[in-house]
Amino acid sequence: MKVSTLFAASTALALATVPALAATPKPVINAIKADQMPAIQRLRQWIALPTIANMGINHQEGADYMRQLALDAGFQQARIIKTDGVPAVFATLDSGAPVTLGVYFMYDVKHYDPAEWSTPPLDARLVERPGEGKAIVGRGAVNQKGPETAFLSALRAFKTAGVKLPVNLVLVAEGEEEIGSPNFPQALADPEVKAALGKSVGIFIPGADQSSTGSVSLSLGAKGVIEVQLISSGEKWGRGPSKDIHSSLMASVDSPAWRLVKALDTLVADDGFTPTIDGLFEKVAPLTDRQKQIIAEEVAAGSEVEEKKSIGLKVWAKDEDHLTSSLRLASQPTVNIQGLVSGYTGPGGKTILPGRAEAKLDLRLVPNMTFEDTVAKLKAHLAKRGYGDIEVKVSGGYSPNETAEDSVLIRAEKATLDAAGIQNTMSARSAGSWPGVMFTGDPLRLPAGGFGVGRGGGAHAPNEWLLVVSDNPKVAGFAEQAKIYADLLYEVARLGKKGR
Amino acid sequence: MKVSTLFAASTALALATVPALAATPKPVINAIKADQMPAIQRLRQWIALPTIANMGINHQEGADYMRQLALDAGFQQARIIKTDGVPAVFATLDSGAPVTLGVYFMYDVKHYDPAEWSTPPLDARLVERPGEGKAIVGRGAVNQKGPETAFLSALRAFKTAGVKLPVNLVLVAEGEEEIGSPNFPQALADPEVKAALGKSVGIFIPGADQSSTGSVSLSLGAKGVIEVQLISSGEKWGRGPSKDIHSSLMASVDSPAWRLVKALDTLVADDGFTPTIDGLFEKVAPLTDRQKQIIAEEVAAGSEVEEKKSIGLKVWAKDEDHLTSSLRLASQPTVNIQGLVSGYTGPGGKTILPGRAEAKLDLRLVPNMTFEDTVAKLKAHLAKRGYGDIEVKVSGGYSPNETAEDSVLIRAEKATLDAAGIQNTMSARSAGSWPGVMFTGDPLRLPAGGFGVGRGGGAHAPNEWLLVVSDNPKVAGFAEQAKIYADLLYEVARLGKKGR
Repeated sequence: MKVSTLFAASTALALATVPALAATPKPVINAIKADQMPAIQRLRQWIALPTIANMGINHQEGADYMRQLALDAGFQQARIIKTDGVPAVFATLDSGAPVTLGVYFMYDVKHYDPAEWSTPPLDARLVERPGEGKAIVGRGAVNQKGPETAFLSALRAFKTAGVKLPVNLVLVAEGEEEIGSPNFPQALADPEVKAALGKSVGIFIPGADQSSTGSVSLSLGAKGVIEVQLISSGEKWGRGPSKDIHSSLMASVDSPAWRLVKALDTLVADDGFTPTIDGLFEKVAPLTDRQKQIIAEEVAAGSEVEEKKSIGLKVWAKDEDHLTSSLRLASQPTVNIQGLVSGYTGPGGKTILPGRAEAKLDLRLVPNMTFEDTVAKLKAHLAKRGYGDIEVKVSGGYSPNETAEDSVLIRAEKATLDAAGIQNTMSARSAGSWPGVMFTGDPLRLPAGGFGVGRGGGAHAPNEWLLVVSDNPKVAGFAEQAKIYADLLYEVARLGKKGR
Repeated sequence: MKVSTLFAASTALALATVPALAATPKPVINAIKADQMPAIQRLRQWIALPTIANMGINHQEGADYMRQLALDAGFQQARIIKTDGVPAVFATLDSGAPVTLGVYFMYDVKHYDPAEWSTPPLDARLVERPGEGKAIVGRGAVNQKGPETAFLSALRAFKTAGVKLPVNLVLVAEGEEEIGSPNFPQALADPEVKAALGKSVGIFIPGADQSSTGSVSLSLGAKGVIEVQLISSGEKWGRGPSKDIHSSLMASVDSPAWRLVKALDTLVADDGFTPTIDGLFEKVAPLTDRQKQIIAEEVAAGSEVEEKKSIGLKVWAKDEDHLTSSLRLASQPTVNIQGLVSGYTGPGGKTILPGRAEAKLDLRLVPNMTFEDTVAKLKAHLAKRGYGDIEVKVSGGYSPNETAEDSVLIRAEKATLDAAGIQNTMSARSAGSWPGVMFTGDPLRLPAGGFGVGRGGGAHAPNEWLLVVSDNPKVAGFAEQAKIYADLLYEVARLGKKGR
C-alpha cells in the first residue's frame, strides 16, 4: 500500500484535537501539518536502513544517515565522532536564544527475526490497528526512529516557516544504545560536545509513550543495566573437554555446562528470583516517600489487567499485588537470564558433552548502585566460590539515573502537557534502562528525561509499531507528536531563563 | 579426486597381512578383493543419502535404500516394517545351515553442520591421513554405514563366488538409532521378526574399532541411555511470561529460565558431576571382579595420553587416575547436559526475559537400572521439589545390555581374531549406548555384541572418517574389514552347533 494513497483520504487528520498553545506560532503548526506525509516517508526510509551494533550492520552508514537527517532539519553543523565502536553524531543549532536544550537520539535498533513478523520489519508498512488507527509496523518504529523523526519534523517546520527556534539545540546521537552504550562516553568526552552540553538546561529524549487512554508518564529516572555473558569453557577451566565430545564420556570428564549451571545457581535464591550476589543490595537506596506516592498514583491510573495481558502474565512474582510489585519493580536490582546457549540447540537431542556453555545475563541497577561496583561484585562473587575461570564478558551497561522533579526540564514537560490538555503523571523510575547517567552523572550532572505523545509498542519484539493516524482524539497521531515538541521548546525557553 | 584413480595405484593392497583362515574359501576372498572398489563406491552413494530421524530427513528413502542393499547382497527377502517413527527393515538369508546368526544395522546418521567440516559431509571424499593411510570422510563413514557396507560386501562375495553361507542370517535394521531407538521395539515385536531372531545364536553388529596399534576390543555390554529434554515455560508453569518479554520486567515477573536452572541444579551435586536424582544409584550393580580385571587389562593396553588428546582433556574428573576413572566410566550412571537453549542465543546480548527454557539431557544407565524406572525417578525427583510443571520430554532411550563372555557369539568373535593373528581384548562395558537390550532383554534374551576390524573416528563429530587404505599392516583396510566378517560366519557355524 502506498502511504500517499492512504493519507490522501485522511485530510481530516485533526491537529485541532490538541489545543494549540499560544506559544507555537501558526506558521510552524501549518508547516508541521504539511510535513506529516513527507516525514512518514522519511521514517520509512530510515527504518529501511537498520543499524545493529552487535551484528556489525550499517555502523558507518547509520551515522552518515543520522548526520544528514540533522543537517536537513536545520542543525547548522553536524559531525561524526569516532569511538571504539559505532560512531556517534554531534550537531548544534544556534538560534541566538538565551536558553540551550540538549537532545539525545539513538539511531540503532534491536535485532529482529523476519520470520517472527507479520510484515517485513524493514518495509515499515502501514497496518490498521482495529480501534486505534493506522500504524507504521517496522523495526525502530517506536524505539526510537518514529519519535525522533517527529521531533526532526518539528524542527523542519520552523525552518520552512522561517521562524527562529526559541532555544538553541545540542544534539548527541549514538548507535550502540541497544547494546548498553559501551562507547558513548567517549563521544561525550569530546571537548566540544562536553562544552556544548554543559550550557544546556538538560537533555530531553523524544519518545511516544501515551497510554491507550491518552495519558503520558513523565519519567524521573531509570534503572542502570549491565549486559554480561558468563562463559564456561573447558579451555579456560583447564578441566573438561576443549571441544564438544561424545556424551558417554560424562562419567570420566568434567562438564563446562554443568559448571555454568552451578555458578548461575549461586546468583539468585531458590525462589529463582531474588538476587544473591554478595553485597548486591549494599548500596540500594530505599524509595523516598515522594517516589512511593508517585508509584501509587501510577498504579491507580494504570490498568493491571492490560499490563498483564500485554506480557502474557497470570500472577506477579511472589504473588504480590500490583502496587507492591510496582514498588519492587522500581526499587529492586535484578539478575535476569536473557539467554542460555550450550552444545546442541536444535530439535530433539544429540549425544554430546559440550566444551562450552554461555549464559547471557542482564543486571538492572537502582540508585546508588554503580555499573563499575556491581561488575566488580559479580566477579568477586564468582571468584569467591571458585568460579574464577568462568569468563565474565561485559558487553555494555551503565549506572542508573535520576532527575529532580523541580528541574526546568521536567517542569517544562509537565507545563507543555498541561497546556495541551493532555493527562499526565510522574514516573518515579523506569525499570527499563537508557544511558541517562552519562548526562545526570559526572561530569555533566544535567537533568535528563524522555518526553513525547503518541503511542506505540513492540520495542525489542516482533511487529514493533507506532500509531501515525489515531482514531482516538486523546491519542496523538504523527503530526501531533511533532507539534508537542515545538510546544516543549517554547516552555523550556520560558522556564529556563533562570537556570536549570 | 576419483576413487578409481586413487585405487588404481593401490594394487598392492595387502590382504595377505591378515592371515587367511582355512575356513574362508579362496574364491570368497578373491571376490571380496574384487569388490573392494565397487563397495567403496556403494558406501559413498549411501553416505550421500543421509537419514536423520529427528530432522525428518529421508525416512522412507533411507528404509527403501536399506532394503535394496540387503537384497543386492543376497538376502532372499527384505521388507520394510512400519513403526510410529522411521521405518525398520527386516531381511532373511536362508542358506540351509543348522546355525542362524542375527545381524543389527542402523541406517540413520547423526546431524551435521557442513560449516564445521573440512570436506562436504555427504561427499565422502578420500582424504590422506598422514601416517595412517587413506580415509573416507563423510557422515556415517564409521557410524555405521562403512562397517555395514563392508559386511554386505562379504555377503556379495559369497554370492559372486557361488559359495553357500555357513550360517543363515536374520537382518534387522533401524533408522532411529541416533535418537535412542524409540520405535524399534515395535519392529522387533513383529511376529515374523521375533520368530526369526529367536532361532539365532545371537546378534552381531558390524563395527570398525581397531586401535592405532591394531588391537580390537570385544564388548560384553553397554550402558543404557535416556534422551530427555526438560522444558520450563511460563505457559505450562502458570507463572512468568507466556512469551519473551522485555528484561526490565524481571523485578516483577517470574523467569522460566531461572526456574530451569534451579531445577537442573538439583540433578547433580555441587561438584557438577555426581548425579543426585533421588534413588538413582539404588539399582546400580557393582562391577564383578572379572569386569574389574577386564577394565584393568583394557587400561593397561590403551594409551591414556592418546585418549586424553583425542578429547582435548587435561585431567579426568575428580583428578582420578586412568584406571579409577575407567572403572567409574563403566560403572557410574550419568546425567549429562547435551545442550541449553533459551531466549536469545546470538552474539552479545539482547534485553529479553525468555518465556521458555530447555535443557537437553542424556542419562546413562548401568545394570540393573532400567529405562522405565529411571524416567519415573527423574519425574518423581522434580515433582517432589515442586518442579512438576517442567515438562520431561523423553525423546528416546533404552536400558543397558550385557552379554556373557562364554556365549557362542563372543567366543566366535574372539576365535576369529585369534586365528587372524589380531590382538584383542575384552571390553567389560561400553560407556556409549546402543539398543542391545532389545535383544539381550525380554523377550528375546539373546547374546549381542559389536564386532569388526578397521579404524575410524569422529562419530557424532565433524570430519567423521573410516580408513579404507591402511598404511599400517596391523590395521585393516576396507577389503580386510569385509573378509573378517566372512571368517566370523565360519566361526559362528563351528561353535554354534550346540546352542548359544
